[in-house]
Amino acid sequence: MKKIIDPWGSGLLEDYGRIVKDFGLELFNPDLFPNPNRLMRRGVVFAGRDLEIISNCIKEKKKFYVLSGIMPSYEKIHLGNKMVVENIRYFQEHGAVSYVLVADLEAAATRGVSLEEAQKTALDFHIPAYVALGLDIKKTNFYFQSENKEVMNRAYEFAKKITLNEFKAIYGSAEPGKIMSAVVQVADILFPQFKERMPGIIPVGVDQDPHIRLTRDIVNRMKKKGFFLPSGLYHKYAPSLNGTLKMSKSNPESCIELPEDIQQVCRKIKKAKTGGRDTLEEHRKLGAKIEEDMVFELLKQHLVEDDEELDKIYMEYKSGKMTSGEIKDIACEKMAKFMNDFVKKTEKARKQTDKLKFIRFK
Amino acid sequence: MKKIIDPWGSGLLEDYGRIVKDFGLELFNPDLFPNPNRLMRRGVVFAGRDLEIISNCIKEKKKFYVLSGIMPSYEKIHLGNKMVVENIRYFQEHGAVSYVLVADLEAAATRGVSLEEAQKTALDFHIPAYVALGLDIKKTNFYFQSENKEVMNRAYEFAKKITLNEFKAIYGSAEPGKIMSAVVQVADILFPQFKERMPGIIPVGVDQDPHIRLTRDIVNRMKKKGFFLPSGLYHKYAPSLNGTLKMSKSNPESCIELPEDIQQVCRKIKKAKTGGRDTLEEHRKLGAKIEEDMVFELLKQHLVEDDEELDKIYMEYKSGKMTSGEIKDIACEKMAKFMNDFVKKTEKARKQTDKLKFIRFK
Repeated sequence: MKKIIDPWGSGLLEDYGRIVKDFGLELFNPDLFPNPNRLMRRGVVFAGRDLEIISNCIKEKKKFYVLSGIMPSYEKIHLGNKMVVENIRYFQEHGAVSYVLVADLEAAATRGVSLEEAQKTALDFHIPAYVALGLDIKKTNFYFQSENKEVMNRAYEFAKKITLNEFKAIYGSAEPGKIMSAVVQVADILFPQFKERMPGIIPVGVDQDPHIRLTRDIVNRMKKKGFFLPSGLYHKYAPSLNGTLKMSKSNPESCIELPEDIQQVCRKIKKAKTGGRDTLEEHRKLGAKIEEDMVFELLKQHLVEDDEELDKIYMEYKSGKMTSGEIKDIACEKMAKFMNDFVKKTEKARKQTDKLKFIRFK
Repeated sequence: MKKIIDPWGSGLLEDYGRIVKDFGLELFNPDLFPNPNRLMRRGVVFAGRDLEIISNCIKEKKKFYVLSGIMPSYEKIHLGNKMVVENIRYFQEHGAVSYVLVADLEAAATRGVSLEEAQKTALDFHIPAYVALGLDIKKTNFYFQSENKEVMNRAYEFAKKITLNEFKAIYGSAEPGKIMSAVVQVADILFPQFKERMPGIIPVGVDQDPHIRLTRDIVNRMKKKGFFLPSGLYHKYAPSLNGTLKMSKSNPESCIELPEDIQQVCRKIKKAKTGGRDTLEEHRKLGAKIEEDMVFELLKQHLVEDDEELDKIYMEYKSGKMTSGEIKDIACEKMAKFMNDFVKKTEKARKQTDKLKFIRFK
């Protein structure tokens, strides 16, 4: 395997270094995984927990699972979801039994939609969108949280295994609703192991690590039950167009939704924070400060699949040959193609929801 | 209706007065209910919440429900359960739709039994014992907590309606397991209203009032949903044989279990705290301090159904004509008859569990 150490590192690395240290994560090593995907190769996947266990499962063809959830409030997802799907896809292609749950209970409790509305939204939009982004529905087991009484029953049991102070230490605070969400999520994460104990990996944005940590604490507290500690795989935040650590819906200019009107997205890209210099003369002379450039980060994380193509852009931009206006044009063009493609594929996948494998509960 | 103001009050009244004040309860008024049962007539049922609503339902033949739960850990119940059953029976006879849930989740999470074991214990013992004590199975709808996903799903929603501080204010503390139990109990209490909103009454020992209070707080927080505030009916603790406020299993000498070997029960009764005087001479002269007498309390609460018979014992004991040895003999004899009867009826009811109406969930 060609060894690639993230050659296009961003200025946010310092923040991620702190996260790794504070949370006690292991740094992601792409050598562990055969044919790493774009996110793994480029250090967008940057950390994990117990990744060697999953690496061994892949290499020795042992049974393991990958699991993620869908939160169906309204008909939009974002680039963070895209990364999760791409990582699920990777493990699907490398032998994982796959589970995607629809968190209709959480949507109903926090977004004021009914369970039926949440389920409908998931079927009409989220699942087709996931398929559009690469989820292999033939290999995926779906369930609705509200129908999985095994999960709820175990959540009840798991809640007794932690103290309020331990919960606060992980989450910072501990409101009853948050505790309920968290213990149900623990049960979701362990659900594939209820019938058969096996390793599993949960690919998430690093802000979701507390759920993995809580699950691992609870598993450790119940050693006799023989659950495997779930492994975690963490990707960075999608590039916030205005250069803050994280895209946020409260700041729409920082954020790209899927789908979103491409004119609007391009307008945001045109205004994005770049590493271009103040004058063209200076830019030609010094080149772009790429580590501060959100548009390059967008290309790197999402829009340029081919490493050599990215390398070329990197060199030209860094040398000053390419201007920030030019890189924005590239990003807009590629984004338009991606968005168009995404919308079409979602539409197509919507017609195939009868092929979904939903787990049915007695 | 013959008006009876608890003529046989016990020395614990002061404690109960404080409870009524601290919890903001209403004092129980037997005038509200037609043909009050023994516990209501004698002030053993001493307080409640929103009792007039239930009184009106009975008088105007409006639909309402009574609900209670069974905690099936091991094959014993106690006199507190007996009081609950007698009060359920009262409301069953006065038109209530009746629900008894089996808290198998709680038993599994806190007592280390499996759900299957908990369910089996409920079917083999608790439900037959409840029938032996008067539960009308023809009028009772049963369900297993672990099978009622509607309850779990609503519990998830309800958890979001309270803050940690509110929870602490009601329960004194707030561990995750306690929060989980409590919100599931809230959902159990409201379950009969999920399909059809109606008033309901929950007969419990007064120590269970926090659950009623939490439920009422959550209902108030969700006014749009139109739930009726559940009413509460509170009975005193069963007489602790050594004179403390509450029987406790950690002090077996204070406590009578159902069933329990009658020799052993009589031995405890013989050692019980009475209001008898130090010498026979003194006793004949001053009479018993009945308000401190746990054996009389046992007769009053549980063993003497007929008011005139109790009145006679009261007068003779209070006047000193009857000694504490004699009242203990009466109690032993009546307890032997009760226990014998209970065991036989439980055995008989065990053969009728095929007649139980269990709610089935999709």
